Amino acid sequence: MYNIALFGAGRIGQVHAVNIAEHKETNLYSVIDPYGDGASKLADKYGANIQTTEQALADPNVHGVLIASATDTHAELIELAARAGKAIFCEKPVHLDIERVRECLAIVKEHQVPLFVGFNRRYDPQFRKVREQLSAGVIGKAESLLITSRDPSPPPAQYVKVSGGMFRDMTIHDFDMARFIMGEDPVSIYAQGSNLVDPEIGQAGDIDTAFIVMKFPSGAMATITNSRRSGYGYDQRIELHGEKGLLRANNIHEDVVEVWGEQGCVAAKPEHFFLQRYEKAYRAEWQHFVDVLSGRAKPECSGYDGEQALLLADKALESLHSGREITL
Amino acid sequence: MYNIALFGAGRIGQVHAVNIAEHKETNLYSVIDPYGDGASKLADKYGANIQTTEQALADPNVHGVLIASATDTHAELIELAARAGKAIFCEKPVHLDIERVRECLAIVKEHQVPLFVGFNRRYDPQFRKVREQLSAGVIGKAESLLITSRDPSPPPAQYVKVSGGMFRDMTIHDFDMARFIMGEDPVSIYAQGSNLVDPEIGQAGDIDTAFIVMKFPSGAMATITNSRRSGYGYDQRIELHGEKGLLRANNIHEDVVEVWGEQGCVAAKPEHFFLQRYEKAYRAEWQHFVDVLSGRAKPECSGYDGEQALLLADKALESLHSGREITL
Amino acid sequence: MYNIALFGAGRIGQVHAVNIAEHKETNLYSVIDPYGDGASKLADKYGANIQTTEQALADPNVHGVLIASATDTHAELIELAARAGKAIFCEKPVHLDIERVRECLAIVKEHQVPLFVGFNRRYDPQFRKVREQLSAGVIGKAESLLITSRDPSPPPAQYVKVSGGMFRDMTIHDFDMARFIMGEDPVSIYAQGSNLVDPEIGQAGDIDTAFIVMKFPSGAMATITNSRRSGYGYDQRIELHGEKGLLRANNIHEDVVEVWGEQGCVAAKPEHFFLQRYEKAYRAEWQHFVDVLSGRAKPECSGYDGEQALLLADKALESLHSGREITL
Amino acid sequence: MYNIALFGAGRIGQVHAVNIAEHKETNLYSVIDPYGDGASKLADKYGANIQTTEQALADPNVHGVLIASATDTHAELIELAARAGKAIFCEKPVHLDIERVRECLAIVKEHQVPLFVGFNRRYDPQFRKVREQLSAGVIGKAESLLITSRDPSPPPAQYVKVSGGMFRDMTIHDFDMARFIMGEDPVSIYAQGSNLVDPEIGQAGDIDTAFIVMKFPSGAMATITNSRRSGYGYDQRIELHGEKGLLRANNIHEDVVEVWGEQGCVAAKPEHFFLQRYEKAYRAEWQHFVDVLSGRAKPECSGYDGEQALLLADKALESLHSGREITL
Repeated sequence: MYNIALFGAGRIGQVHAVNIAEHKETNLYSVIDPYGDGASKLADKYGANIQTTEQALADPNVHGVLIASATDTHAELIELAARAGKAIFCEKPVHLDIERVRECLAIVKEHQVPLFVGFNRRYDPQFRKVREQLSAGVIGKAESLLITSRDPSPPPAQYVKVSGGMFRDMTIHDFDMARFIMGEDPVSIYAQGSNLVDPEIGQAGDIDTAFIVMKFPSGAMATITNSRRSGYGYDQRIELHGEKGLLRANNIHEDVVEVWGEQGCVAAKPEHFFLQRYEKAYRAEWQHFVDVLSGRAKPECSGYDGEQALLLADKALESLHSGREITL
Repeated sequence: MYNIALFGAGRIGQVHAVNIAEHKETNLYSVIDPYGDGASKLADKYGANIQTTEQALADPNVHGVLIASATDTHAELIELAARAGKAIFCEKPVHLDIERVRECLAIVKEHQVPLFVGFNRRYDPQFRKVREQLSAGVIGKAESLLITSRDPSPPPAQYVKVSGGMFRDMTIHDFDMARFIMGEDPVSIYAQGSNLVDPEIGQAGDIDTAFIVMKFPSGAMATITNSRRSGYGYDQRIELHGEKGLLRANNIHEDVVEVWGEQGCVAAKPEHFFLQRYEKAYRAEWQHFVDVLSGRAKPECSGYDGEQALLLADKALESLHSGREITL
Repeated sequence: MYNIALFGAGRIGQVHAVNIAEHKETNLYSVIDPYGDGASKLADKYGANIQTTEQALADPNVHGVLIASATDTHAELIELAARAGKAIFCEKPVHLDIERVRECLAIVKEHQVPLFVGFNRRYDPQFRKVREQLSAGVIGKAESLLITSRDPSPPPAQYVKVSGGMFRDMTIHDFDMARFIMGEDPVSIYAQGSNLVDPEIGQAGDIDTAFIVMKFPSGAMATITNSRRSGYGYDQRIELHGEKGLLRANNIHEDVVEVWGEQGCVAAKPEHFFLQRYEKAYRAEWQHFVDVLSGRAKPECSGYDGEQALLLADKALESLHSGREITL
Repeated sequence: MYNIALFGAGRIGQVHAVNIAEHKETNLYSVIDPYGDGASKLADKYGANIQTTEQALADPNVHGVLIASATDTHAELIELAARAGKAIFCEKPVHLDIERVRECLAIVKEHQVPLFVGFNRRYDPQFRKVREQLSAGVIGKAESLLITSRDPSPPPAQYVKVSGGMFRDMTIHDFDMARFIMGEDPVSIYAQGSNLVDPEIGQAGDIDTAFIVMKFPSGAMATITNSRRSGYGYDQRIELHGEKGLLRANNIHEDVVEVWGEQGCVAAKPEHFFLQRYEKAYRAEWQHFVDVLSGRAKPECSGYDGEQALLLADKALESLHSGREITL
C-alpha cells in the first residue's frame, strides 16, 4: 500500500482524492492545503492526516505526492519533493514560464525521482483507442489530425488573468494530445484567435476562440479549434485521417435516450464538462502512476512532455502576435 | 416507346404519371378518370390524351395500363385489360374480397397477360439491400424480422370506412414486405389491435394501432407494429436478426443537418410520408414494369403475391376477433 | 453503517459485494455460500466474515441480507430472514413456482420486513429516463412499447434445464420492464417461440427465440422480442410511442470511436453483457436498498412485482403451448 | 421555353444536359464541343442541334448559354456570349488568372447580361439549411466555421498540371462556401499544405493536402481541411459554431442500412463523389438560372463571387509559399 500526500484540496484535488482512496494499492495518507477548511473536509472524508508541506516531505511514510495545488506552486513543490526523494504526480502545467520548467526538470533529473505530468486526456479510452488503431495500421500513415476542444462556458475573467492565457491554460491539453496521437513533435505552428465570448477576457489581454495549424516532420498536419464556450456541453472530439481512412472519436453524450416529435429527433447533449467526460481518464492515469510507484512502468507522460506542450503554447502565442508561422 | 394508359388521376396516379413521362422507354399516352378535371389537368401537363375505359382498351396504340383508380374498380379493370391483351400494372390491392381476387387472377391467367401488383416498398433501395445482404449470407439464416410502419397522421374516418380496414389497407404492405424479405409464406399469424388515435376510426369499426406476430416454416418469426400516427413523420424501418448478426434499415431523414444547443442535439425528422420516402421506389418499380413490357423480365410481384398479402390481412382480422393464433 | 450478510458468492454475488463494500453506508459483514472456496475468496477481499445461514440470521449485527444464491434457495432464505427480522434484498426470481412465491410473500407480510426484489433494469438510467419523460408528458399518453432484449450468446443447455425456461429466466426481466414503464398490469398476453439458436436447448424442452404481445387496460400494447443470441453483444433497447412522439433508449456501445474506410463506417458493438451494460443499474439499486434500510424509502420493486412478472411468464408459456391469447 | 446552348459535352456538361432537358421551362437547343463525338452523342440523346460557337452565339433562338467547356476557354466564351447579349451560366472558375477574370467581368458589365457562376455547393440543401438557420438566429452570431472537403481519390497528375493547383481547382469551392455561409469577406488568410497522397502531384509542383485558416471582420474564423483522398468516399461536411450552439451538416451516406456483427456496427460510406452528392444541388442551381433567365431573380452567385473565391486561392498560395498570414 502506497501512502500519498495530496497537495491541494480544490476541485481537481477532490477528483484525485477519490481515486487515491478507492485504489486498492494506494492510501490517501495526508492532505496539504493553505486553506485549512478544504483540507480538513477532505481529510475527514477519507481518514487522512492534515500536514504541512514540510511535514509531508519529511515523513518517511509518504511514498508519493500528488500536486494539485495552485499553478504557481507546482514547480517549487516538484523541486522540494524531488529533493525529498518522493515519486511525483503533478497536474499540468509544471509552470507557466518555460525557463522555470527547465530549471525544475533539471532538479528532478538530478534526484532521479519519477515525475508524471497529468495530461489526463491521454488516458481517455476513446483517444487511446485512436492511437492504438493508428499503431495497428488500421488507417495506414497519419495525414491529417483535427482536434476539437470547446468548453461549455467561459471561466471568470479573474481566473483568466492568472491562467497564463488560453494557449497555456486550455490549448496546452490539445498540444499534448497532438503530440500523443502523432508520436512526433511539430516543425511549425500557426495560431489565429479572437475574443468573441466574453469582452472581459479581451480586456484581460486574452482570447477565447482559437484556431491552430501545425505541421509535422512526416508532412502530416494537425489543426486545433478551441472555444471557451459551446452552448451544448463539453465538446471533445478527434478525427485522424490516414492513407486508408478515418479514425473518429466522437463525443460521449449524457445518455442514449432520444425524443422524436414535431421538433425533430432530439438526443442528449455531450457530457457537461471534464469531471464527467474524463472520469475514466482520471482513474486510468492514477492506475498508471501506481504502476510507476511500484516500478512496473516508467512515466508515459514526463516532464519533457510537459515542457514541449508549454513550448507549443508559447510559440502559438508568438504566432498570434506576429501573424507568422513559427518554425520549431 | 411503350404507350401507357393511366387509370386514375388522383394522388397516386400523379406519382406514376411523372415516372411514365420521364422514362425514356415509356410515353403517357392517355389518362382515364371519371372526374374529368383531374384527367384534363394531367393530360395537359404531359401532352396525353383523354380516353374512356372502352377507348383505351380498344386502342391498339396502348401497350400497357397502369391502374391507379379507386380500389373497388381494380379487379374489373384488370379483367377488362386482360381480355384486351394489355400488360397490367395495378396498384395494391387487386380487390378487398379474396374470392373476387381469385376470380380476377383466373381471368388474367387465361389471357396470359403480365400482371404486376405495385407493392412499391419492394423497390425501396434500403429494404432491397436488406434482402440482398440476407441472400449474400451476411447474417446467416434469418431468425427474427421486425417491421415498423407508422403513418404520420390518420386518414379521415370517411376514408377508413371504404378502406377495407387497417390490415387490408395499411398492414398489407407490411405483410408483403415480410414475405419479400423472408422468401417464404408464414404458417401462423396472430394480431392484436387498439383504437387509440382517433375515436371516429373506432366508431367506423376499425383499429388504428396494431401488433402482428407471424411464424414461418423455418421457425423464424416476424412482428409488425403499426400505427396510424407517429407524431414525427413516416416511420419505416426493418430489423432482420440472423445467426450472425443484424441487418437494420433505418429511416431516411429530411436532411442531415443537426442543431446542438441547450435543448440537446436535434436532428431532422424522418421523411414526411410515402411520396417523399418512396420516391425512388416508385421510379424503380416503374423501371421493373418497363422490363416486363419489353420481355426482359417477368413480374417480380405477381397476382399471387397480391392474393397472399390479402389472405394474411384476412387471417389477421380473424385472429384479432377470435383472440387466437390462426394456422395458415 | 449497515452490516450486510451476502448469500451466494457466484458471479452476481460478486457484483453486489463490490457495491456493498464501496457504499459509504454499508459494510460487507459476512458471506454465506455452501461452496467454501468462493465465500473465502470474497470474504478475504473485503475483510468480511464467513458464516453459515443460521449464524448470519441469528447475528444481531446483521441488518440486512442480500440473497444471490441459487434460484431454488431464494424462497426459503427469504422466509428465514423474514422470521429473523432482517431487511431483504433478493435477486429475481423469488421462486419458479408461483404458489411457492405466494406462500413466501405471505410470511414476509406477516413479519413486516422490507423485501426488495432485484429487477436491476429498473435502475438503468436510460430506461428510467424513458419512464420519467413519459410521466413528464413529453410524448402524451403511451400507446406502443417495444422491448428488445437479446443476449450475446446462449447459456449452456445444462443451465437451461434448471432455469425454469426462457420466459421465467430471461423474459421475466422484460415483463417487469413492461410493467415498470407502462405503470399498469396487462389484460392479455400472447407468446410465440422457436428453437433456432442451439438444438440442445430444444432437446431440453425450451425455446431460445421469443416474441410476446401484451395488451393493457388503457388499450396500449407492448411487444417483447427475445433471443438467446445476437452476434453483436447485449442488445437492450426500448421504444415507447405515444400520442405526440417517440421515446427511444438505444444501446450503449463499447466506445465512441468509428473507423471509416473501404468497408464502410464501423462503430463499436453494444456493451458485451449485463455486467457491463447494467453496472450503473446495480449500483443504483443498491443505493435504493440502502434508502430502504435507513427508512428513507419503501421498496420500489416489491414481492408483488416479483410475483406479477412470474405470472406473466407462466401465462406466456400457457399461450405458447395453446396458441391462444391468454386473458389475465 | 428557353433555348440553351451548351458548351462542353464532357462529364459536367452531361450533368447539366439532363437538368436542362428535364426542366419544364428549358430546352437543350444545341451542343457545342470541339470533340464532335461527345457533342453528337449528347445532341442525339436530347434531340438537340450541333452548332459551332459562332453559330450558337449568332442564333437568335438561343436565350442562354451554359459554359461547361475546358477551363481555359471560359473567359473568352463569356465575353463572346456577353457581346451576343446571351444570359450566361458558367462553370467555375471564370479563369485561373485573376487579371483575366477582371477584364472579362468588365466586358460582362458593359453588355449588361446576367452572369451566374456555378458554385454548385451553394445549392446543396444541407449547406443552404445551415445558412438559413444561421440567418434565423438559431445559434446566434457565427463564431467558428469548419469546412471539411475530401475527395475520394486523387485526379491524374496530368490533370493536376493544368488545374491551376489545388487551391484554384478544389479549395475554391470551399472558399466560396466560407463566403456564402459567413456572408462577409475574410480579412486574413493562412495556408499550410503537404504532398502526401501521390508523389507525382508533388513533382507537378502541387500539394494534395491542405489546411486553411481565415479571419473575418466580425472576429469569426473559418478553417478548411482538404485532401485529394479520403479512403471512404466524398467527405463534405460543415460545422458552424455560434453564440448559442452548433449547426452541423453531416455527410449523406450511400444508404441507411447497417450491419451489426462481430466486426462492429457497420454503416454505409458517404456518397462516392460530386455527381452523387450534389445531384440535387445541380438541379437547384439550374432552377435558379431559369429564374434569372425569366427575370424572376438576379444571379445569386455572380462574377464578383467567382473573382473573390479566386483571389482567396491566390492569397492562400502566397501564404503557403511565404509561411505568413496574408492580410486582405
